[in-house]
Amino acid sequence: MLANTPAPPYYAVIFSSLLTGDTEGYAGTAARMVELAQRQPGFLGVESARESVGITVSYWVSEDAIRAWHANAEHQLAQREGYRAFYQAFRLRVAKVERAYEFERS
Amino acid sequence: MLANTPAPPYYAVIFSSLLTGDTEGYAGTAARMVELAQRQPGFLGVESARESVGITVSYWVSEDAIRAWHANAEHQLAQREGYRAFYQAFRLRVAKVERAYEFERS
Repeated sequence: MLANTPAPPYYAVIFSSLLTGDTEGYAGTAARMVELAQRQPGFLGVESARESVGITVSYWVSEDAIRAWHANAEHQLAQREGYRAFYQAFRLRVAKVERAYEFERS
Repeated sequence: MLANTPAPPYYAVIFSSLLTGDTEGYAGTAARMVELAQRQPGFLGVESARESVGITVSYWVSEDAIRAWHANAEHQLAQREGYRAFYQAFRLRVAKVERAYEFERS
């Protein structure tokens, strides 16, 4: 649901996308990538929602951890499928989280 | 839909939330805040989606622009409503976008 991340600084990968109509296999691949990311060194958490736009924000300890995840072999195959079929368009932004606040209703 | 932001660096405000059951007026307030944010100096774009989690990422030229938006009087009233009624929990993260990539299917 909401990610419980440590105190900043840490990194966020903000991935925003529009899907094509050709999304057979997309849900399974997306779920598998979340499962795989969670086992990567330096993974801190993930938050995701899709309406017309899909937004997935994953949190990482460092830029090196993000680079290693990007280079993961199974993730590379999934990225190729994304370009080939799933994504109409996307934006991928790597950002350093400098300040963070949280609220929990008691 | 997807925000067309300039080349980095710029700032992202990642706002992730869970709603309560008490959301009368929420949709109108949220839409009004997007309309108002778009008129703020230094606003660059916004992306938003809600499933069980809601994620809104707004993009800004500087931290000063974010602080001015946070302090906007009508936005302050909306924030108060958020604490009082709308949000079960939220995370608000301010991050500096350092790298960005985009893909558009041709």
